[in-house]
Amino acid sequence: MDSDNRNRQIGRRGFLAAAGAGASALAGLTAGTARAATPDPAITEVQDWARSLGDGVAVRPYGNPSSFEKHVVRRDVEWLTASRESSVSFTPLHDLDGIITPSGLCFERHHSGIAEIDPQKHRLMVHGMVERQMVYTMSDLKRFPGRANRVYFLECAANSGMEWRGAQLNGCQFTHGMIHNVMYTGLPLKTLLDHCGVRTAGKWLLAEGGDASLMTRSIPLDKAMRDCMVAWAMNGEALRPEQGYPLRLLVPGWEGNMWIKWLRRIEIGDQPWHQREETSKYTDLLADGRARRFTWIMDAKSVVTTPSPQAPLAGKGPQVLSGLAWSGRGAIKRVDVTFDGGRNWRQARIDGPSLPLSLTRFYAEFDWAGEELLIQSRAIDDTGYVQPTKEELRQVRGVNSIYHNNGIQTWLVRGDGQAENVEIS
Amino acid sequence: MDSDNRNRQIGRRGFLAAAGAGASALAGLTAGTARAATPDPAITEVQDWARSLGDGVAVRPYGNPSSFEKHVVRRDVEWLTASRESSVSFTPLHDLDGIITPSGLCFERHHSGIAEIDPQKHRLMVHGMVERQMVYTMSDLKRFPGRANRVYFLECAANSGMEWRGAQLNGCQFTHGMIHNVMYTGLPLKTLLDHCGVRTAGKWLLAEGGDASLMTRSIPLDKAMRDCMVAWAMNGEALRPEQGYPLRLLVPGWEGNMWIKWLRRIEIGDQPWHQREETSKYTDLLADGRARRFTWIMDAKSVVTTPSPQAPLAGKGPQVLSGLAWSGRGAIKRVDVTFDGGRNWRQARIDGPSLPLSLTRFYAEFDWAGEELLIQSRAIDDTGYVQPTKEELRQVRGVNSIYHNNGIQTWLVRGDGQAENVEIS
Repeated sequence: MDSDNRNRQIGRRGFLAAAGAGASALAGLTAGTARAATPDPAITEVQDWARSLGDGVAVRPYGNPSSFEKHVVRRDVEWLTASRESSVSFTPLHDLDGIITPSGLCFERHHSGIAEIDPQKHRLMVHGMVERQMVYTMSDLKRFPGRANRVYFLECAANSGMEWRGAQLNGCQFTHGMIHNVMYTGLPLKTLLDHCGVRTAGKWLLAEGGDASLMTRSIPLDKAMRDCMVAWAMNGEALRPEQGYPLRLLVPGWEGNMWIKWLRRIEIGDQPWHQREETSKYTDLLADGRARRFTWIMDAKSVVTTPSPQAPLAGKGPQVLSGLAWSGRGAIKRVDVTFDGGRNWRQARIDGPSLPLSLTRFYAEFDWAGEELLIQSRAIDDTGYVQPTKEELRQVRGVNSIYHNNGIQTWLVRGDGQAENVEIS
Repeated sequence: MDSDNRNRQIGRRGFLAAAGAGASALAGLTAGTARAATPDPAITEVQDWARSLGDGVAVRPYGNPSSFEKHVVRRDVEWLTASRESSVSFTPLHDLDGIITPSGLCFERHHSGIAEIDPQKHRLMVHGMVERQMVYTMSDLKRFPGRANRVYFLECAANSGMEWRGAQLNGCQFTHGMIHNVMYTGLPLKTLLDHCGVRTAGKWLLAEGGDASLMTRSIPLDKAMRDCMVAWAMNGEALRPEQGYPLRLLVPGWEGNMWIKWLRRIEIGDQPWHQREETSKYTDLLADGRARRFTWIMDAKSVVTTPSPQAPLAGKGPQVLSGLAWSGRGAIKRVDVTFDGGRNWRQARIDGPSLPLSLTRFYAEFDWAGEELLIQSRAIDDTGYVQPTKEELRQVRGVNSIYHNNGIQTWLVRGDGQAENVEIS
């Protein structure tokens, strides 16, 4: 008998023995899992994938997920916008874990579709109130000292925006999926601004994208000098086209609309430009008709990703609640969770790198006997800010706006394990 | 004039002005870049991608890189192995930045091709010297308390193995590309072993993969209890098929062959099993005919990824040297680089999260006047271990082995910017 066959037989004998022995011992762990008392063919039989050679190396020079993961995709909501070219797709948060968002699943928000830019032809111009106007090629940018790698979340100001008037969309992909978190590589914007020499009168910056919409936003110079970056890579490789390839602006902790994609132009001026995206859009209309403007910072927020409407409980017994928390003001210091709609709270366990202005992963283990649950999470950042309820937000801001809803989300879990987006008062 | 047209005109006027003004001012930064004194059409003309709408959201529910990045792929070396089913493909390190390896570009090493496993049918059995034999479904594993997220490098013991007998393969993709670094999500192996109850006599563990090769490796129990994990996710999403979907073993800091993919069986015993992959393979044959065995730890190592043979210098002037360092014994404490083959060393700048048992990114800025360079890097970990030269390694280990070559790599950069894999004494 050769070595491979011996291994296989050892394996089969062992599986046969364990298939019987394990069945009852596991009952405590997996009370909800149906498990036959007789040996399971999934254990005792040699599976198809062990009978023959699979695909070799470099058959897929750039790999993709398993065919069993085809349901893990970005999704849009057809009725939400008039066309897909000016619309949004949502990150499937309920299918993900850890804090890194896979580049292929990062939510999209376009105003005129995805610009497919030739990096050789792309330029970044810096002009206005500067000593030296500059035009940079991609190659120029990669020659500057001070290249940096940072993990940041990017959240659309309209994330959870449909929830202002009550629970609407069923699934955290749709209520909270306008967010992603990747490691960027690029250059501090300060490096370029210093290279151009900002004049004393220069206090504001206009960033402009190179797609057909020429998206523009005004940014205060002090923010630009503090921690903004121009980035050409995400999660180790070049930016994806839908994330601004070959160059995007990072405005850490601030609303995603300001993170100009396909970045082509930066102008320095002495006052904001009052473009469409900071007047008619991305301002927060209050109940009395006045509007909050320049509300750039994304306040502390969290969401339970499992269980949630797209990720029901599979059965009774031990469970792992999982979720994400973040703050545009710093690092997440603590996350609390409740299973009874806020009567009792317990502290969740934060795991993995907990970085400032980054998504933070939390878990809370619990045992479920089939009772109805009202699950919520509440984030607290290192400034001491506590994530408010939706009702607390509405009392101050009304329900006219679609922006900056960081209220506490509620999932109702029913006796069959299915979860639903609900609101409780 | 509507807002969009005004923006476009402001943009064009600005670009026209800056195209002239910037040209000379940039000369200091980009001495090597040819730049016309007359305005560049890439700047002054409206580009194709700004003339029409691009693809909308969710047109690609799972996104892929830009078509301009088609060269960034895993590659194999045809003459290296008899077939692709038992072979290796290499990570394109020279095209990447930061510390996260994109899942689609993680190097592959298979012994019978990629097993395409149905996660519903997959089982993990734990048996042998345990109180309770167990068979776990994927769903069972996701119900245990203590789920964790960790960033670890995985390096094949044979990485740089072709270099024992001198410089051979031209490019860090091929000399050092059997490595990747991702964030894993899974469960400490200790949790499962405690659940099964390891008997006092149990000192070793055999891990077995579920593909046709039934890959097996022996692992000391104390390592398994210290920091090994069973992982089902990488970089936020399910493991890729070529990385062991739906379940792989993590053996942090130790040679990649032990990180059993498609993990189906763990047996506890009182001694190692002496399987093929730890006797005829993955032992280090010395000059006197004896072999080192159980040489699991990957010692501190580094490589300059830019410039390198696949990533030449584009022109004279300011440059950013970039590279990776790692150690299987802890965190990287310092990296030194030399431009003259080791006569003078300077400390590189480490950037980004510097985590234990993870790739660490370093940079060194320099100015290049076109002279010949002999570039090397040297990693030092937090145990004080200093990466040796290849010659120092050969004096102790000879040249019979293909494993555990962590010697210092040399790139010769010629006057035209092209780089070559060379060896200097």
